[in-house]
Amino acid sequence: MDFTARLDAAWRRSNSLVCVGLDPDPARFPATLHGRPNAIEEFCRNIIDATGDAVCAFKPQIAYFAAHGAESTLERVCEHIRSNHPHVVLLLDAKRGDIGDTAEMYAREAFDRYGADAVTVNPWLGSDALEPFFARRDRATFVLCRTSNAGSNEVQSLQVSNDGSGSTSAPLYELIARRAANEWSKRATVGLVVGATQPAELRRVRDIVGEMPLLVPGVGAQGGDPATVVRNGATSAGFGLIVNSSRAILYASDGDDYATASRSATLALRDALNAAR
Amino acid sequence: MDFTARLDAAWRRSNSLVCVGLDPDPARFPATLHGRPNAIEEFCRNIIDATGDAVCAFKPQIAYFAAHGAESTLERVCEHIRSNHPHVVLLLDAKRGDIGDTAEMYAREAFDRYGADAVTVNPWLGSDALEPFFARRDRATFVLCRTSNAGSNEVQSLQVSNDGSGSTSAPLYELIARRAANEWSKRATVGLVVGATQPAELRRVRDIVGEMPLLVPGVGAQGGDPATVVRNGATSAGFGLIVNSSRAILYASDGDDYATASRSATLALRDALNAAR
Repeated sequence: MDFTARLDAAWRRSNSLVCVGLDPDPARFPATLHGRPNAIEEFCRNIIDATGDAVCAFKPQIAYFAAHGAESTLERVCEHIRSNHPHVVLLLDAKRGDIGDTAEMYAREAFDRYGADAVTVNPWLGSDALEPFFARRDRATFVLCRTSNAGSNEVQSLQVSNDGSGSTSAPLYELIARRAANEWSKRATVGLVVGATQPAELRRVRDIVGEMPLLVPGVGAQGGDPATVVRNGATSAGFGLIVNSSRAILYASDGDDYATASRSATLALRDALNAAR
Repeated sequence: MDFTARLDAAWRRSNSLVCVGLDPDPARFPATLHGRPNAIEEFCRNIIDATGDAVCAFKPQIAYFAAHGAESTLERVCEHIRSNHPHVVLLLDAKRGDIGDTAEMYAREAFDRYGADAVTVNPWLGSDALEPFFARRDRATFVLCRTSNAGSNEVQSLQVSNDGSGSTSAPLYELIARRAANEWSKRATVGLVVGATQPAELRRVRDIVGEMPLLVPGVGAQGGDPATVVRNGATSAGFGLIVNSSRAILYASDGDDYATASRSATLALRDALNAAR
């Protein structure tokens, strides 16, 4: 099954646009996990199993594993998702970006080593740096378009005047959206990352890209509103969105009930999104 | 010793602007290493020891280790550099870029786990995503400005019209150079990455940033000319450049003499650069 069909099946089976972001930070783990030998893995597995029937995707953030030398843990977490939740999309948040030969190594890291269905990448280096990801026809590449942080204005919203579109000037993130829609999607399975904290820009990107899937971080701890995300970002059929929440779900409770609490937070977000569809 | 003093000492002690990029690709290793249990580590150590007195920096490219699940090998390679070549700067090529909490994890990966003196980062997400790197006052952060690949034109050379500089329009890479010179360098030790394949842009960046160190990939296999790099990129005192070569040095020979050949290629590049200083 190709990625588009896989994601569509995941949305319909779960009736959920929610993606749980796996950003395991041992400093925030409940006391019950302190000192446990494989605390990161245990925490992630418990979150995954508590939420797996209520999400369309899991998104491990590789930095949280790399900071602790825990790549082998990430391998096992990805294997756990693939084996025990095979209908859920596995999206590796890596935001890689490098020239061609090196980008090929990063594509192997994401798709071969971790077995991800999709990976996030950075467009700063241009199309040739994205081609090794695009070449994996059975996988998907989510390009950073308009991120959820305050500083995203500094580069992504700059007005550019020689983008070849015929218009005199447009923000850079719109140029990325047009390239994704008009060029990259012709030869690859492409999505975009657009933060929930910029709802007007989310609407603008949806208008440009048609049915393309959008990964939307920034609800939950970062303050984006779920109903606004759906109104501005969903396709006319009520799909097209992978709405990520990490901290608000992972750390919904700092007690022994953390897994149950993560499920409740996931269901609440699922329902808030579905109410606006 | 802070990074600026460390780099200055490395340049003067080695009398070399050369950086050897460690991009170990087992598919290109000499036959003598095929089937060896720690071939990546053995290859890197032999290259490092053959060239260590003739370089100012080593630049491991993390993707080449990550693709093979060889992070522990990278840890040992970095430790080997720090222990056996303590006067050589250790620059981790990671090109990371993510929002604040995640960027902090990547800073830990580069500086704490691998003990790098400096790391490469991507400016697409804006300044707040760079702050966790900037906060490490004894280390340095090299921001991608104008990369050496053909596609770098697509984003980095776009004309931007609202950059706050007072000029009506300038290429985006110049905006990054001005931010580095006027803002980031006020609170952090910052360098820029500018490819040797764009010599006019290298000159322009040098004019903007004063004495700031520039990491220059793109000589050797990518075709940039060493003398042109020095003429367009060196400071008036003949420093300011970390000129990287990876493949042309690592794979100078595919025979048993690969380490000796890497030394010869390093000395040749060192001398070509010095002749133009």
